[in-house]
Amino acid sequence: MNAISWDNNRLRLLDQTRLPRERVYVDCADYQSVVAAIREMRVRGAPAIGVAGAYAVALAANRLAATSRDAFLRALDVACDEIARARPTAVNLSWAVERVRRAAHQQSDVAAIRACALAEARRIQEEDEQANRSMGRLGAALIPERATVLTHCNAGALATAGYGTALGVLRAAREQGKDVRVIATETRPLLQGARLTAWELREDGFDVTLITDSMAGHVLSRGEVDCVVVGADRIAANGDVANKIGTYTIAVLAKENGVPFYVAAPVSTIDLATPSGDAIAIEERPPEEVTHIAGVPIAPDGVRVRNPAFDITPHRYISAIVTEHGVTRPPYEAGLGRLPRSASAASVR
Amino acid sequence: MNAISWDNNRLRLLDQTRLPRERVYVDCADYQSVVAAIREMRVRGAPAIGVAGAYAVALAANRLAATSRDAFLRALDVACDEIARARPTAVNLSWAVERVRRAAHQQSDVAAIRACALAEARRIQEEDEQANRSMGRLGAALIPERATVLTHCNAGALATAGYGTALGVLRAAREQGKDVRVIATETRPLLQGARLTAWELREDGFDVTLITDSMAGHVLSRGEVDCVVVGADRIAANGDVANKIGTYTIAVLAKENGVPFYVAAPVSTIDLATPSGDAIAIEERPPEEVTHIAGVPIAPDGVRVRNPAFDITPHRYISAIVTEHGVTRPPYEAGLGRLPRSASAASVR
Repeated sequence: MNAISWDNNRLRLLDQTRLPRERVYVDCADYQSVVAAIREMRVRGAPAIGVAGAYAVALAANRLAATSRDAFLRALDVACDEIARARPTAVNLSWAVERVRRAAHQQSDVAAIRACALAEARRIQEEDEQANRSMGRLGAALIPERATVLTHCNAGALATAGYGTALGVLRAAREQGKDVRVIATETRPLLQGARLTAWELREDGFDVTLITDSMAGHVLSRGEVDCVVVGADRIAANGDVANKIGTYTIAVLAKENGVPFYVAAPVSTIDLATPSGDAIAIEERPPEEVTHIAGVPIAPDGVRVRNPAFDITPHRYISAIVTEHGVTRPPYEAGLGRLPRSASAASVR
Repeated sequence: MNAISWDNNRLRLLDQTRLPRERVYVDCADYQSVVAAIREMRVRGAPAIGVAGAYAVALAANRLAATSRDAFLRALDVACDEIARARPTAVNLSWAVERVRRAAHQQSDVAAIRACALAEARRIQEEDEQANRSMGRLGAALIPERATVLTHCNAGALATAGYGTALGVLRAAREQGKDVRVIATETRPLLQGARLTAWELREDGFDVTLITDSMAGHVLSRGEVDCVVVGADRIAANGDVANKIGTYTIAVLAKENGVPFYVAAPVSTIDLATPSGDAIAIEERPPEEVTHIAGVPIAPDGVRVRNPAFDITPHRYISAIVTEHGVTRPPYEAGLGRLPRSASAASVR
């Protein structure tokens, strides 16, 4: 799965709005195209938009005309701000952009800045995939030998630099010889579960069953689910998790039915500067995502719509948070604060 | 809203699969067409399929060729069995068919049977609308003066002989001068909330906001909902409720957030012969309803699917059950047993 690649000074993105029907790539030659691709969710998933954002800074550096170091960096900062604002909820985007920006500011001339921005973006991509593999190994210990696991949205290879967070845990469990079946919620409005998770897992040979979001409670109440594993877009210092709309609902249902609820995300998703979920901005997306499916209208014209893209799952519903540096259990405030941050990551905080 | 009408010896049904884009009617000249329309959900909603099933018995009586009373009734019984089996979960269908069948068996000749079957079907239709208006008046007392009410699926005029059960309560509250806003879940897979409830309420001038099913938890957790009102397909003797898939999820979320959860249904929906929700058969519908929306595929070809059409909400999540004979609060076992049954209804039990 090569959803994000750098080739010939362009960023090539697998267009996730067209999957699974068509495998189409978007070639971005400037940072504005990457911002548009992030906004339109052609690339989505917190770690993946972090990687794309980092490459967008490299593209901006490639294109800027200023020749003096200071003027160049001022222009680069403007581009960085625009890239970081493409979507508000996932912290990985601003984290990755800030990391490349800081690295650029340490260089002494324009050529070095350009080379450094690209190198840092590549490093973020490589580290993300490595983090997912570590997270998978550690998180797999939570999965029973024979397990049916419910997941929501797509926290897979497509949402990351590769392997996946929540789906990485399932991949690692299977690589350890466990018998893992998956129930994937379709994840309205944009159907990432039906279009991406079901597709990605079937390509990998998983036994996957698709349900509508409204069926999650039913299968949980019938004892058909051994645990829930989802990704995250931002984790507050107290362990509250912002993730795809519907995650909170599943977490409450899991607790009500005594089913463990796990969150898998790299340390870059943890935002210690955000004390709790109340402080996380929830992106409201266009009404057409709700009133139309694949371009087909499904509701009366002009009906009022709410379309929050994320919700907040309070930490009391979360059994454990899996990162590349270990599995954290409640109380999260202490545990998350103790996790090592990567050298580059620490430097931006 | 004339969703079910009898005209010129045919049953005319508003095709609810085509709403809100097209207002198309299906004319049924024989009972088999009604069975097909019920199976294909061209008519849906527990009280509405009860009314349609009753008219289907009248159509069968019209068409049967036997001239001896006994042979005629034996053939009619075969048709009744087939009609009652069109869908398994809503008890109103078998209740209405049985009521017409019993009335037919009390007649002395074929002409009287034919006349009686049609008269009984008409009576069921009239009583259902009257029941909804009584239910609305009684249930409206539960709605605050200024209220945002969450509802799921369509328990409106379209789901009944008119006025609606859950939506009847909201209509009555508004007629009493209350300021009622509605949040309607889209209700995947068949989108009755987006297609029917949003349409029906807007036609009536209600302030209605559409959300995906996955957003119900979010709006409940934010304090945006004052109460939930839904319909029912079958209510067991202990108060457990079978209703559209996703109802259980909303009930758990409502309780978790301290929001009252009300069920509105006529006494014909209460099945005292079913002790609890465990004994209610849950219809599993075709996978295409999940993998396709409006004919457009949204999932990988051949993916495994679950498609239960209903779920069971245990009575402990239900704040009150509203019927045409009063509002019943826990403990339900005693309260539901005390409700008067209509003379005709009582005679079939």
